[in-house]
Amino acid sequence: MGKTNPGRFFEDYRIGDVLSHAVPRTVGGGERALYHMLYPARHALYSSDEFAKSCGLVSSPLDDLINFHVVFGKTVPDVSLNAVANLGYAQGRWLLPVWPGDTLRAESEVIGLKQNSNGKTGVLYVRTTGLNQNDEAVLEYVRWVMVRKRDETAPAPETVIPDLPTTVAADQLVVPEGLDFTNYDFTLAGEPHRWGDYEIGEQIDHVDGVTIEEAEHMMATRLWQNTAKVHFDTSARPDGSRLIYGGHVISMARALSFNGLANAQMIVGINAGAHANPCLAGDTVRAWSEVLDKAETDAPGVGAIRLRLVATKGGAPFALKDDKGKYLPEVLLDLDYWALIPT
Amino acid sequence: MGKTNPGRFFEDYRIGDVLSHAVPRTVGGGERALYHMLYPARHALYSSDEFAKSCGLVSSPLDDLINFHVVFGKTVPDVSLNAVANLGYAQGRWLLPVWPGDTLRAESEVIGLKQNSNGKTGVLYVRTTGLNQNDEAVLEYVRWVMVRKRDETAPAPETVIPDLPTTVAADQLVVPEGLDFTNYDFTLAGEPHRWGDYEIGEQIDHVDGVTIEEAEHMMATRLWQNTAKVHFDTSARPDGSRLIYGGHVISMARALSFNGLANAQMIVGINAGAHANPCLAGDTVRAWSEVLDKAETDAPGVGAIRLRLVATKGGAPFALKDDKGKYLPEVLLDLDYWALIPT
Amino acid sequence: MGKTNPGRFFEDYRIGDVLSHAVPRTVGGGERALYHMLYPARHALYSSDEFAKSCGLVSSPLDDLINFHVVFGKTVPDVSLNAVANLGYAQGRWLLPVWPGDTLRAESEVIGLKQNSNGKTGVLYVRTTGLNQNDEAVLEYVRWVMVRKRDETAPAPETVIPDLPTTVAADQLVVPEGLDFTNYDFTLAGEPHRWGDYEIGEQIDHVDGVTIEEAEHMMATRLWQNTAKVHFDTSARPDGSRLIYGGHVISMARALSFNGLANAQMIVGINAGAHANPCLAGDTVRAWSEVLDKAETDAPGVGAIRLRLVATKGGAPFALKDDKGKYLPEVLLDLDYWALIPT
Repeated sequence: MGKTNPGRFFEDYRIGDVLSHAVPRTVGGGERALYHMLYPARHALYSSDEFAKSCGLVSSPLDDLINFHVVFGKTVPDVSLNAVANLGYAQGRWLLPVWPGDTLRAESEVIGLKQNSNGKTGVLYVRTTGLNQNDEAVLEYVRWVMVRKRDETAPAPETVIPDLPTTVAADQLVVPEGLDFTNYDFTLAGEPHRWGDYEIGEQIDHVDGVTIEEAEHMMATRLWQNTAKVHFDTSARPDGSRLIYGGHVISMARALSFNGLANAQMIVGINAGAHANPCLAGDTVRAWSEVLDKAETDAPGVGAIRLRLVATKGGAPFALKDDKGKYLPEVLLDLDYWALIPT
Repeated sequence: MGKTNPGRFFEDYRIGDVLSHAVPRTVGGGERALYHMLYPARHALYSSDEFAKSCGLVSSPLDDLINFHVVFGKTVPDVSLNAVANLGYAQGRWLLPVWPGDTLRAESEVIGLKQNSNGKTGVLYVRTTGLNQNDEAVLEYVRWVMVRKRDETAPAPETVIPDLPTTVAADQLVVPEGLDFTNYDFTLAGEPHRWGDYEIGEQIDHVDGVTIEEAEHMMATRLWQNTAKVHFDTSARPDGSRLIYGGHVISMARALSFNGLANAQMIVGINAGAHANPCLAGDTVRAWSEVLDKAETDAPGVGAIRLRLVATKGGAPFALKDDKGKYLPEVLLDLDYWALIPT
Repeated sequence: MGKTNPGRFFEDYRIGDVLSHAVPRTVGGGERALYHMLYPARHALYSSDEFAKSCGLVSSPLDDLINFHVVFGKTVPDVSLNAVANLGYAQGRWLLPVWPGDTLRAESEVIGLKQNSNGKTGVLYVRTTGLNQNDEAVLEYVRWVMVRKRDETAPAPETVIPDLPTTVAADQLVVPEGLDFTNYDFTLAGEPHRWGDYEIGEQIDHVDGVTIEEAEHMMATRLWQNTAKVHFDTSARPDGSRLIYGGHVISMARALSFNGLANAQMIVGINAGAHANPCLAGDTVRAWSEVLDKAETDAPGVGAIRLRLVATKGGAPFALKDDKGKYLPEVLLDLDYWALIPT
């Protein structure tokens, strides 16, 4: 038993600790094909090398959320093996495209700690960075989780709560070098709607739904080397159900949002995110979006659009919270992100 | 709601319209591996680069049915989103091999329209062409579907029914450039039976069966970016079942037919096809074939064989229709195709 | 019916027969990605090209068990289509790495035959070799299976039982050319434990469990072109269950063993193996290991460790057999193998 990894507990973290996460991963055309098998992903820039070339890139990079999942998966053994809940995301930015053949690894810095008043758990804040084989940062985000203490009598650390802006400022978004939407082919992309056609406050029901199977969410989660046992082992939770990795819901909802947001090609920032309720096999996932903001960029023909993406397992579109401000029970995900879209 | 694609209805089509389908797709080794995971595909030419080289090709091309599924999937949003039924196929031809790294897109021309007497639906005929990144046609076929009208009072179009030969003439089949079966290795291919060993009228029971799971057919269908909701959403049909994409049955039956037709390496034509009854998860798919015709080709050592491929979910092999000429309820697929086989 | 393969029966084998198995297979990045989707595989050498380079290799080779499964799958139509039971393995050695783009085929030599006293079945011993496109052996192992006779009155062959050492001697293990663990990065690999930290007799509970789904084991088995019908067809066994391919359990247990044996990077030998009880969908697979032996190698920084890997579907860790020496009913696999690990 002494050789297996028990994970870290709340009292094991110190402000400033840098955790180098294990198992680098080379990603390529296989992962890309799998992503298209697991999700109804159709954004043209991630589907076609030719389309990506017509947008100024050398070929189609790996889907933005592949990068997120690979990096997130690496953090699980060090950050969330003993987590009770995934509480939030902030300050997420995609910094460089990931190309087939690149190798990703991840590091996290402890930036906040706050013991809960019950003395049994605490909130841990980490800033995670994904790096490629040249040690260039490709992605970064802040996540905070509630973690159990190993020993409830261990002293509480000094409380440090990081100052986290509620959004990524538009001028902090990184547009991939060379990206140019001036010759963008709206017919091949699938929809005619451009940056100027979306209004702040506009809501879009993405209409389609997907009923989720155990085999699918387990394969997706394993693909990212995320091994948290609640996703795989029916004996890990009292009711025998396997909890679906929140990232599976993110990717499913994002793919469903093609229908109405086909031109919101690349995710470049995450402002906030909440996994509002658990998702289980048998649930039928649907999605709706709301335009929260718009911004210009310096790249030719490229605008930025800030979107709320909500995934549900039922209920009416556009319903989010009850009159006490609590998420409705059918809401699975409330994600606030920036995407690049042709102007 | 105004930004999502409601699909076209019967009155939206005009003879001569050319529909450029969205979302080009680069295909490669990932898709090839997935095809082998989803189907018990074993035809050597699509399994081994070395075998393909020994047959005069530069490497193993993508499986003929991968090309069909990718092209078919692209047509769904423009052709069959409001379809009631997929009625038939004709004049299918594979025109060029697709190699790993190629990017496929698709176009369809409206070649026939006939409103049904109930005034609620009509039959739409399209000729679909799959194209690679050099705008070369790799595949073409005619499909006709029954489509709903948006407005039942819309006037009926002039009836145009295309003149469709019931078979692709053998001299119209395209043999891939360089294909040469004179040094064909029957041991590596898995069976000794050559063109001359098959007799017209001969029937072959392919023996093996595969019980189908929801996760598998959904992943297969998504892989081809076919997003018709009946395949994915348990709330889309009154009985809560998910209808299996007809192409999944085609690929499953074709793969099962290896056992008895291991040398019928490449599909080069589709003469006709009917999805006789729906297939649902839990069904055990089996297949049998009948030799319908044989023809010579100009390529060295390469013959053509015309086959009926029947997929069933039960019943006895070789039973197809009842005494009124109606497909038996256990018949899923009746496909009439041409394949290339060593002489 | 005459064209399908009925498989060989016991009386069809002769000592010295060499069976050339059909359907060569080119393997690449797609198969690698799928392996990571199907199993929680995390050994760094098979996950990252960069990690593999830091260990002296040109890039990450295909996972050792991918090679085993591909070769094993090819033997099924000739060796085990009419097998009643898979009885054992011996003398397994990995001889050369398999790189993306390599094409594998397999041959088996009949090295033993012994008719059972009931006259209905016999035991067949074969030595199987996997070969790459240059006809170099990449893998070899001996397997014995119980095979049915077609005709119970057929005469018994002369009994030949091969002399099979119970282990592969450490000096017979082949270390891949160039492998060098002197700069091994234990942080990236995921655990600090090296060769010297493991003691003979030490037992490790790998803690994690995975509940298995039908779709997953069927896809895994198909991926290796293993088409034995008991794995796919609910009508093939009296109780309607689909038997899970024993190799699926091997790969699942090996991947689970990362937790405690993250540095046992490469399997290089199989001494013995027993599929103790059948595994069915719904079973939750867990694993434990025992250190059986240790040896040095000539490669810099590279040691060998001999491990017993046991997969279970319940019960307590480290329980293997009852007091009569029979495997406990919850034990699925008892595998005895050699792996390479940094010293």
